[in-house]
Amino acid sequence: MTVRFGLLGAGRIGKVHAKAITSNPKAQLVAVADAMEQAAGAVAHQYGCTIRTIEAILRSDDIDAVVICTPTDTHADLIEQFSRAGKAIFCEKPIDLDVERVKACLKIVDQEGGTLMVGFNRRFDPHFQAMRKVIDEGQIGEVEMVTIVSRDPGAPPVDYIKRSGGIFRDMTIHDFDMARYMLGEEIDTVSAQASVLVDPAIGEAGDYDSVSVMLSTASGKHATISNSRRATYGYDQRIEVHGSKGAVSAENQRPVSIELANAGGYTRPPLHDFFMTRYTEAYAREISTFIDALETGSPANPSGLDGLIALALAEAAVRSVNEGRAVKVSEVTGGLAGNSASPRQ
Amino acid sequence: MTVRFGLLGAGRIGKVHAKAITSNPKAQLVAVADAMEQAAGAVAHQYGCTIRTIEAILRSDDIDAVVICTPTDTHADLIEQFSRAGKAIFCEKPIDLDVERVKACLKIVDQEGGTLMVGFNRRFDPHFQAMRKVIDEGQIGEVEMVTIVSRDPGAPPVDYIKRSGGIFRDMTIHDFDMARYMLGEEIDTVSAQASVLVDPAIGEAGDYDSVSVMLSTASGKHATISNSRRATYGYDQRIEVHGSKGAVSAENQRPVSIELANAGGYTRPPLHDFFMTRYTEAYAREISTFIDALETGSPANPSGLDGLIALALAEAAVRSVNEGRAVKVSEVTGGLAGNSASPRQ
Amino acid sequence: MTVRFGLLGAGRIGKVHAKAITSNPKAQLVAVADAMEQAAGAVAHQYGCTIRTIEAILRSDDIDAVVICTPTDTHADLIEQFSRAGKAIFCEKPIDLDVERVKACLKIVDQEGGTLMVGFNRRFDPHFQAMRKVIDEGQIGEVEMVTIVSRDPGAPPVDYIKRSGGIFRDMTIHDFDMARYMLGEEIDTVSAQASVLVDPAIGEAGDYDSVSVMLSTASGKHATISNSRRATYGYDQRIEVHGSKGAVSAENQRPVSIELANAGGYTRPPLHDFFMTRYTEAYAREISTFIDALETGSPANPSGLDGLIALALAEAAVRSVNEGRAVKVSEVTGGLAGNSASPRQ
Amino acid sequence: MTVRFGLLGAGRIGKVHAKAITSNPKAQLVAVADAMEQAAGAVAHQYGCTIRTIEAILRSDDIDAVVICTPTDTHADLIEQFSRAGKAIFCEKPIDLDVERVKACLKIVDQEGGTLMVGFNRRFDPHFQAMRKVIDEGQIGEVEMVTIVSRDPGAPPVDYIKRSGGIFRDMTIHDFDMARYMLGEEIDTVSAQASVLVDPAIGEAGDYDSVSVMLSTASGKHATISNSRRATYGYDQRIEVHGSKGAVSAENQRPVSIELANAGGYTRPPLHDFFMTRYTEAYAREISTFIDALETGSPANPSGLDGLIALALAEAAVRSVNEGRAVKVSEVTGGLAGNSASPRQ
Repeated sequence: MTVRFGLLGAGRIGKVHAKAITSNPKAQLVAVADAMEQAAGAVAHQYGCTIRTIEAILRSDDIDAVVICTPTDTHADLIEQFSRAGKAIFCEKPIDLDVERVKACLKIVDQEGGTLMVGFNRRFDPHFQAMRKVIDEGQIGEVEMVTIVSRDPGAPPVDYIKRSGGIFRDMTIHDFDMARYMLGEEIDTVSAQASVLVDPAIGEAGDYDSVSVMLSTASGKHATISNSRRATYGYDQRIEVHGSKGAVSAENQRPVSIELANAGGYTRPPLHDFFMTRYTEAYAREISTFIDALETGSPANPSGLDGLIALALAEAAVRSVNEGRAVKVSEVTGGLAGNSASPRQ
Repeated sequence: MTVRFGLLGAGRIGKVHAKAITSNPKAQLVAVADAMEQAAGAVAHQYGCTIRTIEAILRSDDIDAVVICTPTDTHADLIEQFSRAGKAIFCEKPIDLDVERVKACLKIVDQEGGTLMVGFNRRFDPHFQAMRKVIDEGQIGEVEMVTIVSRDPGAPPVDYIKRSGGIFRDMTIHDFDMARYMLGEEIDTVSAQASVLVDPAIGEAGDYDSVSVMLSTASGKHATISNSRRATYGYDQRIEVHGSKGAVSAENQRPVSIELANAGGYTRPPLHDFFMTRYTEAYAREISTFIDALETGSPANPSGLDGLIALALAEAAVRSVNEGRAVKVSEVTGGLAGNSASPRQ
Repeated sequence: MTVRFGLLGAGRIGKVHAKAITSNPKAQLVAVADAMEQAAGAVAHQYGCTIRTIEAILRSDDIDAVVICTPTDTHADLIEQFSRAGKAIFCEKPIDLDVERVKACLKIVDQEGGTLMVGFNRRFDPHFQAMRKVIDEGQIGEVEMVTIVSRDPGAPPVDYIKRSGGIFRDMTIHDFDMARYMLGEEIDTVSAQASVLVDPAIGEAGDYDSVSVMLSTASGKHATISNSRRATYGYDQRIEVHGSKGAVSAENQRPVSIELANAGGYTRPPLHDFFMTRYTEAYAREISTFIDALETGSPANPSGLDGLIALALAEAAVRSVNEGRAVKVSEVTGGLAGNSASPRQ
Repeated sequence: MTVRFGLLGAGRIGKVHAKAITSNPKAQLVAVADAMEQAAGAVAHQYGCTIRTIEAILRSDDIDAVVICTPTDTHADLIEQFSRAGKAIFCEKPIDLDVERVKACLKIVDQEGGTLMVGFNRRFDPHFQAMRKVIDEGQIGEVEMVTIVSRDPGAPPVDYIKRSGGIFRDMTIHDFDMARYMLGEEIDTVSAQASVLVDPAIGEAGDYDSVSVMLSTASGKHATISNSRRATYGYDQRIEVHGSKGAVSAENQRPVSIELANAGGYTRPPLHDFFMTRYTEAYAREISTFIDALETGSPANPSGLDGLIALALAEAAVRSVNEGRAVKVSEVTGGLAGNSASPRQ
């Protein structure tokens, strides 16, 4: 079986997926669309695919699935259109910045019976997957407390931040998803605090750059998240899960693992400085998982509902900061049943 | 100069201090008092000091300073008595479980102009002190976020828990003090969540065994604390401080640092399983610092006010759990000026 | 510029190079040859190249360079033939098991003015290259002592061992090359000891499975090598260089870097268990370096002379074991000038 | 039981033992002797013991055991005298720099039936002892290869070096003993190479500062030793034992284990810079073991024979360097039976 792909959006992340698709023996990149002619052309040239408009891809019989890497504010509309056109959909997170818009979109996906997978790349990192496996094997007993530290090497441009939906929806959303993935249980309440320590311009744009979050589940499990938009030492991505019988953690990754010893001490090089080099393998596994889901007819995972829940957690965090209180997730979701979401997988 | 000591309480922690005093060339252990004759006798025999009653020590001209290791509910009274008697006082934390009682006690210490140092042993751990030095040297720039993970190998007896004032006043109190020590700024708000995951009997006793805390300062600095009464892998004591120019952290300590490699992987032994072996050096440095303060006439540090503030943070955490909201520390302290406290030193 | 490749030998290592060639934008895989039709067919099918005989490749105008991955006893002949045919040559180590045969072969390469690069893949490992860079930058001062530990997860089949030329020529040869690469100075004497500890069948085949080597240079620098054909914990590949101002080392590599903590201690997974996954990136960089040399017309590196010297060191080690003495390398090479070899690069 | 000690020599290492003795509840320091009145006085004052001459100690009825920390050239004579006087003896290594003199001395000890323990402090390091325990439990299977890296932070004064017997007898001797301890089998041959890289003055004094050693046992086990008189990064003391089922190693020790992360990477502090702080615990355990041997009447361990064998290995190493060949240990010892030595314990 070969899955024939259309790529919507040929920017930075679009190129990552183009490479993943063309490296996968079960996939073929048929067409690329991008409002910027040059971007589409670069992908078409490098991987030998055609350039089409989004509308043309929508009507293309030789395309089975699309990867949506266009700007966030187009995601929900495109998901609805391609869902109605019977194409399988892989969409970069988030589906939309507004919880209600996402709900409406997912309703249509459900009605059409389509396949929608949301791009939470970290679930496909080999190290985090290995942690999940250790947990599933019962090696740490019952999960009790998840500790996530996630720091970017530097803040994105303020222009980007203004359109991003804020740090909780843009950055912490990945950690919300990882907290669910590791806890294996839906989150019940969210407490958050936020400040501007890195760049006043971020504050002027109405956002924060340093946030802490506490999460709790109905059974009393905990997760904490620590985020900063600055880390001089690289892309800091650590997760630790403490359980009744032990704990498991993933170390930070660095491109070169040597150690220099001298009178100043023992020094190892900084971490990866970019999410794309840090998560190279994760992106490849992500597309491969999407293809496998299409091949086997099994549900795509993480699903649209996973995307919705992570967004709802971000929304709850914003409320918690604004109101200085622990916010129930159900206040945001309206008690949305989590039964088809996939915290674990 | 030789400081002549009386030891009040010859239990577990009393013995630790007896050893520290007798190993210190500037100190002499003159007398020990304990309601349990056998306990006092053991110390007297091992270190060649006399056995006296607390009242006798209070009136002893050959005693300059006392170390209070009696049960918590006696601390405040003893501090007041020995303060009035003109003895320098080192008191194990906490001064009392009640914030108002502590305030009243400290008022008397202030009136008497006495010396009172409170036993937050972790401030004297060589590794945490080295972190503080790195911070003071500006090597990580401005402190932004402190992350503390602190887990006990196992829970104390439920009988102890009932008298302990609860996990925040008994266990987290050390982490509150370390958060202040590392942040170098007073804490403004406390958010906490708590649950019972380790032992239902702890819940039945009205306490928790698993807690998470978020702290923020007026300038927007963050600290998070993760506590559990259970850790199969040993006494887990990690602190990490992230700043504008870098980060510094202290690794866990183990009694033996070997590594076994085989088909199952690479294994290092568990951590220290007891706070006394983990903090052996800290206890020695603590008493030494107390003696140095007496010798130089400089203020004892951490002070009674440091003890009060840590207790207030615990009280705020309890309120936060009960009320599901971020609690201002000033709600507890009544706006107590922090100007003579010593978050840094 | 595009380098058009012919691949001689489509076995295990041939496939590695086929992948590296076809992933390199400056290279094209035109043809493959293998005595086993099926092996050639698999490569041809996967990468869309033609199948030809070695003789046909020799005469092909559309081929600029060959990669020789055939059995060792064919290497020298093929190098001579393709050198005469004006093709650039990348040859897997060793050129031959006999020092004199290698000398004769290299003479012809020199006469023809051809390009010959020998496959010491470890020089292209990112971690070892980063070490070399640290040394070149003077960060450890003058190199003084190199310590190499190199252990295979398991021994190859005895049939392979019989044809391998023995452990020094088959396995230690890589470490001899790394010792030269890190020392940055030619080796003067070799002392070795060897025994059979892993498998008596290896001894019956006339070989060893556990060897130690000491090397010294004219200026008094040292290197030690420790080899075993068995390591339950994976593919153990460590190098450490001690110098006048410091030291630099490369840690072992593992596919997954998580840590599990429990009552048994802290466990990280075993190392890579196969040289191909351990050195994936090195193989890609190796072919890329070969192509760059062709593009820029600079000398291929490591050169045929590098291959010869490593073989001479192996020969000297064999003599040292047999005669129980330190053997001068010049006894083997006949004082071959090392001036065009490249210990550093 | 209380062992009453006389301390012969109150220099640097004498003070270490004075502290160990006085901290041990089963021991009493009765008297100290030193040619330097001031040195003896300092110990007498600090620990409340008497000052006596060596002759007086020899005749003292209130002394059960002596610790010999005088200059090396007095050791053998003192051992003989105190052995005849029926005192138990702990002697710092080496017994003498000359193998024949040591043999003669041990003969007298044997005749007198006295107790003689030799100060190889590393056997009492908690980490190396834990390694030995792992080996004894069979966790790494059969021991195959021992790798020792041992580097001093800096070279001793040339005056010391001139009297030291050379690096093999002064420094490597510890590693020879550790190789025996870890191999658990007597060493059969020694190959060594040596050079002067650190300080030409050391060469002018007839000694080396950088040496490598290979050892083999009758059954084909290997050990390698790498020594340097210089290490900018501290006191480098690593041992690794590879066996049929796994490997075990001891990490280097540092006084403070924090990690600083910034744009330059992740830095841990240098190692201990002095053998006394590195081996503090080992010295305490060493004296404690000596006392236990006296208490139980079991043989002292490491014995005089262990001291002799380590010296013979050093002698063999010197010959190997001078003659460029592998030297049989039996050439030096004259086939001395190793049956009462204790490679393992």
